[in-house]
Amino acid sequence: MAERSTSIFFGTPDGVAEGDWFKGHTELHAAGLHRFKGQGISGTSETGADSIVLSGGYIDDRIEHDRIVYTGMGGRDRDSGLMVADQTLGERGNAALVVSQALGHPVRVIEGLGISNGKRRRAMKGYEYRGLYRVAEHWMTVGQEGFRICQFELRKLAPGELPTPQAVDPLEGAPTDLEEQVRRYISQDRLVRDSKIVRQVKRMYDNTCQVCQLRLVVSPSGEAYSEAAHIQAVGKPHNGEDRLENLLCLCPNCHALFDRGALHLSDDLDVLDGFSGEFRATLTRAQGHLIGLEFVRKHRERWAPRSE
Amino acid sequence: MAERSTSIFFGTPDGVAEGDWFKGHTELHAAGLHRFKGQGISGTSETGADSIVLSGGYIDDRIEHDRIVYTGMGGRDRDSGLMVADQTLGERGNAALVVSQALGHPVRVIEGLGISNGKRRRAMKGYEYRGLYRVAEHWMTVGQEGFRICQFELRKLAPGELPTPQAVDPLEGAPTDLEEQVRRYISQDRLVRDSKIVRQVKRMYDNTCQVCQLRLVVSPSGEAYSEAAHIQAVGKPHNGEDRLENLLCLCPNCHALFDRGALHLSDDLDVLDGFSGEFRATLTRAQGHLIGLEFVRKHRERWAPRSE
Repeated sequence: MAERSTSIFFGTPDGVAEGDWFKGHTELHAAGLHRFKGQGISGTSETGADSIVLSGGYIDDRIEHDRIVYTGMGGRDRDSGLMVADQTLGERGNAALVVSQALGHPVRVIEGLGISNGKRRRAMKGYEYRGLYRVAEHWMTVGQEGFRICQFELRKLAPGELPTPQAVDPLEGAPTDLEEQVRRYISQDRLVRDSKIVRQVKRMYDNTCQVCQLRLVVSPSGEAYSEAAHIQAVGKPHNGEDRLENLLCLCPNCHALFDRGALHLSDDLDVLDGFSGEFRATLTRAQGHLIGLEFVRKHRERWAPRSE
Repeated sequence: MAERSTSIFFGTPDGVAEGDWFKGHTELHAAGLHRFKGQGISGTSETGADSIVLSGGYIDDRIEHDRIVYTGMGGRDRDSGLMVADQTLGERGNAALVVSQALGHPVRVIEGLGISNGKRRRAMKGYEYRGLYRVAEHWMTVGQEGFRICQFELRKLAPGELPTPQAVDPLEGAPTDLEEQVRRYISQDRLVRDSKIVRQVKRMYDNTCQVCQLRLVVSPSGEAYSEAAHIQAVGKPHNGEDRLENLLCLCPNCHALFDRGALHLSDDLDVLDGFSGEFRATLTRAQGHLIGLEFVRKHRERWAPRSE
């Protein structure tokens, strides 16, 4: 069980300075740096997060001096250390970081030393206190291990700087009245991107998968179901474009594989196995459907690190 | 092009009474009953909806005296009259009805006569004015034709009764401050239902589809992707239970087919073609996974009308 001290404190505790070294979680706890022993994120959705430990457990983390991309908690098997399920923002620590973003709490960042990105636990060489950061952004994406993850961008605070509270997307600005709320509610439905090009790509292929040629019939009159898949993912942090040149018409199975990097495309638009690189199929092409090679390459680049 | 009068009016126009008969849209328009000639819903997201015409075009509509379940607009091919795409709440008329629900506008209901549910246009025998209704609820679901539809429940108003404005789900009650907004934002993520039983059913089958035995490998370490499918749909209007007995572990393709009634289960848990009733497969069963026959039957009942 994680041990938790009772009260939360934001900021650097007295007697601690950036660069200080600590042997383990017990010492971090005693110094007032990290209240939730043995866990990555200290805090709850009630209080916000006051500190995190970078343990190197997540291959999707990016650690620079002033900017950290930190993967949230959840989805990992306790014994094997492998991702086995999707993360959600509802998870305790992830919710805590969203609250710290919204309310502008400074977050203490502690780095595990002598660790590298990888899937198994390694012997630790202690911890270093890296100072205070603000939670600048968060998003959901599919990580290198094929499951949905929550990610947080943390930015180093200048000495004496305090983060400002910020509304969290998609709640920017407080709704003022019922009409405004309704408008927001309706516009959420528009988040499914430009439905015109979605319909267009499905029509071009008569809802037939460009990879496996499957056409899933879902009505007595023979109508079929397909999905429009972005080649380079749209939304944070990938920011692909919502254009026909960045869309494929896929069956849900090939879509799930493609979005998780288990399939990718060569520059010749052959469909390759994302792990072995073996040839799987030739992508069907409808007349007039140009496919942007820049998107194909961005998709490959995204998944390249895990086959290295 | 639809002809639109410039100003909106809520309520029954002078000189019109319930039960009055009209020859066509031109007469409805002249009487001040329906401003958007030739269209089902009069109104926009700016004004709300002031009237609808029940044209019998939607097999998913349910028309009783005091209660109407009305399918929104969109997704239908102009020429064939067949559903070919999903509807969205962002569509003009659907947004208008949500606004009328939220702001408490009374909606005039006009019924096309001599029409029956079906997929092609039929000769009309005129229209009858049925009086004023309130929009009581709305929801998204998959309709009999295999595409997502917006539905609205309308309730007849008593003489002199006016609807009261109501917050639309999921916006019940106005958020008061930033913390409250954050809490809502996070809890949206929880809408993915009880993730414990979702994980449980996926683990029971090692992410292997109970229908087609496919196991979609999505990571270099061999982890697989599957989906937990509710047998009886949860959420409005089906209200199935979020229990292990109501869950299957399926690949995305079989999930898409099952959720659209293109596959269903017999009481013996054989997988049958939803249209022809032909045997397709025997459902794989893991030890300890009881499947509720009540859910299997509700799923079949839902899709029964279209094979009749």
